[in-house]
Amino acid sequence: MATFDFQGIATQFVEHYYTTFDTDRSKLVHLYRENSMLTFEGTQQLGAVNVGEKLVNLPFRKVKHQYGAPDAQPTAAGGIIILVTGQLVVDDEQRPLPYSQAFHLCQDPTGQWFVFNDIFKLVLG
Amino acid sequence: MATFDFQGIATQFVEHYYTTFDTDRSKLVHLYRENSMLTFEGTQQLGAVNVGEKLVNLPFRKVKHQYGAPDAQPTAAGGIIILVTGQLVVDDEQRPLPYSQAFHLCQDPTGQWFVFNDIFKLVLG
Repeated sequence: MATFDFQGIATQFVEHYYTTFDTDRSKLVHLYRENSMLTFEGTQQLGAVNVGEKLVNLPFRKVKHQYGAPDAQPTAAGGIIILVTGQLVVDDEQRPLPYSQAFHLCQDPTGQWFVFNDIFKLVLG
Repeated sequence: MATFDFQGIATQFVEHYYTTFDTDRSKLVHLYRENSMLTFEGTQQLGAVNVGEKLVNLPFRKVKHQYGAPDAQPTAAGGIIILVTGQLVVDDEQRPLPYSQAFHLCQDPTGQWFVFNDIFKLVLG
């Protein structure tokens, strides 16, 4: 596999992503770029602005992600594919919602990692 | 998003993949190439031969995948990212096992789609 520390970058990214999501999700927009894509429960958004709006306007106020160790793999083009599974606790719901999320991270010209592809699905039992 | 039919290719691929898996998984090796990667429940394999062996030697004889519509997105490099969630029924187990699987498909020089990245996780409730 690739010689860069894709697993370390993935672990750090996922922690940063969900901490930001759970504390101030208006800041998530900075993790996307103008060609980024989000598919959230089957609804597609293109571009950081649209993705950011979608995330900010999700119909809950409080949210907490609980998740296991992410699995990561490098791509041929120098990106990183990540798969996370976990549970969402929203507002005052007692029942956690199992979810699954795939990210494809790429580096921008300054070397900063951003989310190129993002697919989020609730897992219905 | 991209102009090629990434959703159609993804849907067709996923159906072909799981039908092959459930009927004769020794043939799955043909969907991978020498630089393909599989992470199966945290265990990593590199290359079609190793991936194929891992899949053939999984500890069950009969298996049936039940899954929902796959979500797909194009990548900047002309690939396709796919996220599938579903349930596995193995051997004579009554209880289906929820799982989640991310694929990154690429085209080989002949234009044939193959699996570059494959991450499979059981979703434990």
